Amino acid sequence: MSLRSEALDYIKNNYDFYQGILQDFIKIPSISTDPNRKPNMLEAANFIKEILNEFGIQDVQILETKGHPVVFAEKKSASKDALTVLIYGHYDVQPSDPIELWDTDPFTPTIRNDRLFGRGASDMKGQIIASLTAYHAINSIGPIPVNIKFIIEGEEEIGSPNLAEFLENNKELLKCDVILNPDAGMISPEYPTIVYGLRGLTYFELNINGPDHDLHSGMFGGIIHNPAIVLSELITKMHDENWKVTLPGFYDDVIPLSDEEREKLSRLPISDEDLKRQTGAPALFGEKGYSSIERLGARPTLEINGMLSGFTGEGSKTIIPSSAMAKISMRTVPNQDPDKIYQQLKNFIELNVPQTVKWDLKQFAGGWASISDISHPGVIALKKALETEWGIEPLFKREGGSIPVVAAMQRILGKDSVLTGFGLPEDKIHSPNESLHLPTWKKGILSLIHFFFNYAGME
Amino acid sequence: MSLRSEALDYIKNNYDFYQGILQDFIKIPSISTDPNRKPNMLEAANFIKEILNEFGIQDVQILETKGHPVVFAEKKSASKDALTVLIYGHYDVQPSDPIELWDTDPFTPTIRNDRLFGRGASDMKGQIIASLTAYHAINSIGPIPVNIKFIIEGEEEIGSPNLAEFLENNKELLKCDVILNPDAGMISPEYPTIVYGLRGLTYFELNINGPDHDLHSGMFGGIIHNPAIVLSELITKMHDENWKVTLPGFYDDVIPLSDEEREKLSRLPISDEDLKRQTGAPALFGEKGYSSIERLGARPTLEINGMLSGFTGEGSKTIIPSSAMAKISMRTVPNQDPDKIYQQLKNFIELNVPQTVKWDLKQFAGGWASISDISHPGVIALKKALETEWGIEPLFKREGGSIPVVAAMQRILGKDSVLTGFGLPEDKIHSPNESLHLPTWKKGILSLIHFFFNYAGME
Repeated sequence: MSLRSEALDYIKNNYDFYQGILQDFIKIPSISTDPNRKPNMLEAANFIKEILNEFGIQDVQILETKGHPVVFAEKKSASKDALTVLIYGHYDVQPSDPIELWDTDPFTPTIRNDRLFGRGASDMKGQIIASLTAYHAINSIGPIPVNIKFIIEGEEEIGSPNLAEFLENNKELLKCDVILNPDAGMISPEYPTIVYGLRGLTYFELNINGPDHDLHSGMFGGIIHNPAIVLSELITKMHDENWKVTLPGFYDDVIPLSDEEREKLSRLPISDEDLKRQTGAPALFGEKGYSSIERLGARPTLEINGMLSGFTGEGSKTIIPSSAMAKISMRTVPNQDPDKIYQQLKNFIELNVPQTVKWDLKQFAGGWASISDISHPGVIALKKALETEWGIEPLFKREGGSIPVVAAMQRILGKDSVLTGFGLPEDKIHSPNESLHLPTWKKGILSLIHFFFNYAGME
Repeated sequence: MSLRSEALDYIKNNYDFYQGILQDFIKIPSISTDPNRKPNMLEAANFIKEILNEFGIQDVQILETKGHPVVFAEKKSASKDALTVLIYGHYDVQPSDPIELWDTDPFTPTIRNDRLFGRGASDMKGQIIASLTAYHAINSIGPIPVNIKFIIEGEEEIGSPNLAEFLENNKELLKCDVILNPDAGMISPEYPTIVYGLRGLTYFELNINGPDHDLHSGMFGGIIHNPAIVLSELITKMHDENWKVTLPGFYDDVIPLSDEEREKLSRLPISDEDLKRQTGAPALFGEKGYSSIERLGARPTLEINGMLSGFTGEGSKTIIPSSAMAKISMRTVPNQDPDKIYQQLKNFIELNVPQTVKWDLKQFAGGWASISDISHPGVIALKKALETEWGIEPLFKREGGSIPVVAAMQRILGKDSVLTGFGLPEDKIHSPNESLHLPTWKKGILSLIHFFFNYAGME
């Protein structure tokens, strides 16, 4: 029996143990954007440290940043000339609100119909535990075939603001041959997926300020430019009738899609009907001249993530609000520059805002899009691994989401990331009732075992 | 010494006692729109009952409606053919949020610089206590010169949804010669004001629903018509470039302003600079072709009172919100019909909403505008009363606010209301740090004493 088969069997025999660890991990409300959750962030970092200790790595480091700390750990292979895989993860999760829409508590993991429900179950505590588990199964049987390094940060959900500096300062520590990033997902339980392109993200908050206090809408209605209406006007103007973003210069640096890539993307087995079902939207919508798949991964977008003004409680309150706020973010594609996007938005507002209000613009995050070499040995090893476990060739996809760390690692560490993951579109990540499809997760762990052996060139 | 002079002196000698009663009244958080405040609503109704008992009226009735109860009380004059004044008031107040913007607790009355701070101090607990006080001072000296009835409701701030039915069912009880409504205000401490026109109010909540859950803005950005943007587009379209409301038929029933009235309104001593100062807005704004005074009282408006969508907490959350909500209200003028306004808004949405979303529209309130006869004996009595106390002729003004009860009483009881009040534009009613200017309030009480004697035709 090969080391590989023994490791695969080890998972099958110890599956419940690993799933229990995942459940304990989900119980920690590690919401990076919430200042009140700082103690939980430390708790989550320490949780990983303790698990890694239990999994045979004694020297686990919790490294400070200006924000939440990074967990780093390393396990050397017995073989001196083994290749090194740097595994990336993030232990932070999205906020759980609106809390009233959860069927069960977001931080009390619950299994229903083969799914494990809880905030972070899919994004990406499940993926982290899958990676740790694959490593641990091999390590429990015999020597690991590659050197493994873990870098698990705590600020991905807020745009990894301190990771670039961390990478710059720890280049030697993070030296590797390839980066494995399991923070992407699969198209469906049948189709394992490798992601070769990711969008970038820039995120802003715009505040429009009118009168210096909320006004009685009867006493003052008729002489005030209502900030909620001014904000609505600005938001409306941000797209034209073809749903192109109107920020001046927004498309200047966008690399156009080649006919070849469009042809390849058109073969992905994702229909508009699938997307309608996944989103529950009455109809799909978007930029004219592009297919849904193209619009999702290969074209930039501008979204309103949130909006708040005046009275929003039950019933009625007759005021003209003194201010209005919108969270505005753009998903960008290669080669859009986050700094230029900020400037474009600023220019747009200056051009379009009336003199009847004051405004201010805050930036929360800005990260580049990225695109990877699909003939990298790491990609080949992963492709084969997924094929072994699923019985079909994996799909290659451009992902609409953003993992700023991928572009940052490419730029700073000079290494490509191999992007995969075992989340599904139905997982409702970032939404109420996030869950993880456990059968897919288990297959994912097994395929990661294959990946390590494949990449090392071992049977 | 006349009865009138003795009553005026009585106020001067007992001012602190009456002001203490007002403070106790403000302590009750009688927010009619908040279901959690229902016990406080009853507490406020009972408070008035107890004060009236103390003020010599034993038979005070707390009359049920489908919503909050109405307080009714009556005191007969000794003279058999005395005229009857029905005094209207409302014991409910606006919500206190945003609570963090109050310098002192909204329900802990506090005096600073001649002003009494607290929710409802000006709108209209101060005005109710002024009326009760004027009555009580006269009653303490001798027989009152007119019959007085009090009707004090608890739903004015939510549009008096049950008052019309109450009036219909209690016509006999409410029989009177004139209605005194002190829920209007003054232009400035120097200018006593009589209001002869009021705008109507219709209030709605519009919900736009897109995907059936909040979506990850990366995974799904590019294929979804963002509900916050759809709502913004609808809001934007509700006005044209001249800031006319675009609801189909909105101006059809509006009675145009006569040249004579425009000329009279132009003489009101309220400058654009005054209005800018009162609102703190960077600039004034509104419908083209009309002066600020005209736009404030004699022209209809459409305002957004509140707006909510997606993530509005600190920091960033990368979602496409599943829904977006706006509170939308119109201040109407004679002869706009609230039912037609509802239909116009519905038609507007049907015409303009895209197929990519679902929507629903709730109506919270709908009341007619009103306009009164300025040669009514009650108006003449009040005009003389205010002139005596302030030393100048009062101003006649159209008010931008809405008191649905005025139109309802005109329609159902067949009587005109005499509208005045001792609130000032600086009182910040409906806003944080609402307050009452106490010297003006005191003058108001004295002028109400004059009013009762004037109306009875007594020295």
